[in-house]
Amino acid sequence: MKRIFTNIGELATSQGRTALCGKAQGNIKRLQSAWILEKNCMIDSVGTGSPPAADKVIDCGGKLVTPGLVDCHTHLVFGGWREKELAMKLAGKSYLEILAAGGGILSTVRETRAASEDALYEKASRLLSEAMSYGTTAMEIKSGYGLDLSTEQKQLRVIKRLKEQNSDLAATFLGAHAFPPEMEREAYMDFLCETAIPAIAADGLAEYCDVFCDEGVFTAAQAERILLCGKRFGLIPKLHADEIREIGGTETAAKVGAISCDHLSETGVAGIRALKDGGVIAVMLPATSFYLQKPYGNFRGMIDAGVPVAVATDMNPGSTPNLSLPFAMTAACLYGRLTPEEVLTAATLNGAAAIGMANRLGTLESGKQADLVVWDADNLEQLIYRYGTNRTLRVYKRGVCQFGKERV
Amino acid sequence: MKRIFTNIGELATSQGRTALCGKAQGNIKRLQSAWILEKNCMIDSVGTGSPPAADKVIDCGGKLVTPGLVDCHTHLVFGGWREKELAMKLAGKSYLEILAAGGGILSTVRETRAASEDALYEKASRLLSEAMSYGTTAMEIKSGYGLDLSTEQKQLRVIKRLKEQNSDLAATFLGAHAFPPEMEREAYMDFLCETAIPAIAADGLAEYCDVFCDEGVFTAAQAERILLCGKRFGLIPKLHADEIREIGGTETAAKVGAISCDHLSETGVAGIRALKDGGVIAVMLPATSFYLQKPYGNFRGMIDAGVPVAVATDMNPGSTPNLSLPFAMTAACLYGRLTPEEVLTAATLNGAAAIGMANRLGTLESGKQADLVVWDADNLEQLIYRYGTNRTLRVYKRGVCQFGKERV
Repeated sequence: MKRIFTNIGELATSQGRTALCGKAQGNIKRLQSAWILEKNCMIDSVGTGSPPAADKVIDCGGKLVTPGLVDCHTHLVFGGWREKELAMKLAGKSYLEILAAGGGILSTVRETRAASEDALYEKASRLLSEAMSYGTTAMEIKSGYGLDLSTEQKQLRVIKRLKEQNSDLAATFLGAHAFPPEMEREAYMDFLCETAIPAIAADGLAEYCDVFCDEGVFTAAQAERILLCGKRFGLIPKLHADEIREIGGTETAAKVGAISCDHLSETGVAGIRALKDGGVIAVMLPATSFYLQKPYGNFRGMIDAGVPVAVATDMNPGSTPNLSLPFAMTAACLYGRLTPEEVLTAATLNGAAAIGMANRLGTLESGKQADLVVWDADNLEQLIYRYGTNRTLRVYKRGVCQFGKERV
Repeated sequence: MKRIFTNIGELATSQGRTALCGKAQGNIKRLQSAWILEKNCMIDSVGTGSPPAADKVIDCGGKLVTPGLVDCHTHLVFGGWREKELAMKLAGKSYLEILAAGGGILSTVRETRAASEDALYEKASRLLSEAMSYGTTAMEIKSGYGLDLSTEQKQLRVIKRLKEQNSDLAATFLGAHAFPPEMEREAYMDFLCETAIPAIAADGLAEYCDVFCDEGVFTAAQAERILLCGKRFGLIPKLHADEIREIGGTETAAKVGAISCDHLSETGVAGIRALKDGGVIAVMLPATSFYLQKPYGNFRGMIDAGVPVAVATDMNPGSTPNLSLPFAMTAACLYGRLTPEEVLTAATLNGAAAIGMANRLGTLESGKQADLVVWDADNLEQLIYRYGTNRTLRVYKRGVCQFGKERV
């Protein structure tokens, strides 16, 4: 089976199989009047001019086509929602008052523990479909709302089941998302390293291990211990760092060889240098900054220093219940001063690299998977500019239309 | 024909036929397990418990139902887009450099003048449908990209044609949106008052007259002259004021008896007092603030002073190309500290009042039009909280499903 995507008004794509940084991040390929030839789920070739013959011709209507977006930081599997906290916050309640009223992350932990695996699966499956309707064709999903072995395993089994819906999901064990209320901190550290990580690795339930390293949560030393333990069991390190305050997370990321370090809204020059020297991808989460009204972080400092920048949604029920990666891209441009070209790389190739999928995803090139989005936009700038409403026309995964009405 | 909307998980609505202010703005009606009985396009009754009999039963799936949203400030009819300006801005170009490169409002004026009436109509019609798919069932639309009689009339004729698609559109003459490059300022003032307003009023092409009263645009004295002239010809005054700097727009609004004064991101205590004393509705445009990275304005000061607050998108190709009123509502809550209840009133009843439609729109009550939205949300808070993606399930205008798949 060969499909030809024709009448592409603008084809915009990064190029390569590794994360891009510095000037290369914004130096993307843009073709007018282009075509893409797909063969057996993969991209055979890309060109302009007369398209080659194929079994099926798909008319892209003169619109923008980009690689499918890769959302490399989400917390998609959880019980309940926390909209009542927003109302409390708007009514002037402090975070401590919200906690006292049973809110905060531990309320999601309670609801996730209480939920059946099937219920978590049904909910996450709907969210995954919704994200795809906004252009996300690959995603990372974290556990971290169990803080006990059985619930963390339940979340990770849900992610495994979701892979039947979308094979390009990365599973991250985030037992170190918070400390559970029922255990001393040191005991929980031991539990993570001696019980949870070995059990999860043995079942092959995760590829990555992540730690929320920040003020009041896990220290840099604790993060290092957990991530090195995970590494011994084959789990690739990731970190949440510098969201609240710089406490050494970026240096830890470099030291343990993390594939990415995420949030980074408070990261200064030394932290940027640590990421650069460690070859760590910076995953920026501007929708979280928008929702929490917090700093967005030094995107340009990262680019200028040669750190590869990715952008993700951080979708979660507490700090940003937003599934739209295009919204995060617009916020990254407006508030992080990324260019449209840089943010495309951030949300495709660099996102894919942050979850080890850059070899097969993230660009429109021969040999990559035929994951692509036809947008209701004439060019890349329009996609970023026309924020607020969904601009996808059709979303393709491995050459097959998953969302929207195909024009043949 | 009678339709009964049943299985409404939460019905949330303001009440009344005039704009609400102060505590009343947030004091809305919320019913659980409710129904709405529609008869001949109008709401017959609203209740809880066993629903009355009807010709057609519409199951709302236990979800949130609100009145259709009213977007009381848009610039929906225009030629071209200006996404290239965003790219220039992100690349560090100043506004003056963008102007020198042919950008800014005058580029939209050029493209609107050059576009055929049919082309403008087709484009605006698609945008109006897209807005409805996000919950907007009534809208105000301004001219103001002609700055000459024939183009302003062309824009207003497009709005008139759009009323065949949606009867609840308000047309506003905004000839005083900018000064045209080809005319001296005083000559343009004379043209507006002596030629344009009389001609447009004679053709019945507008119900409102608006002026961009701000630093570098129209002075308060010029605004007063234009609006009083419009008033003599039956056009109800509105103002753009205090977006850049306070130059007396709020006082002018009060003096001429404007129905609304819009933007107001720089309005201080005296301006708020003027609006209050003048009985003027404050139309806040938080999506513009988000896009331009400008102050959001003193929403709480308005509420506390007893000024009725409306929220609208300001959809336009320059300062905010966003059609989603729910996004503006979320931004108003996060950055203006409105409560979910207050912002519902702002985007329904108070929006309707700002365009003279509060008598028939903006609430779910006996005798109002059956314009309503079924949301993929369990309650009002969830609608505000789950920003970023479209939460409409079905949108009804006069009882008829206009968007989404009806569950019968």
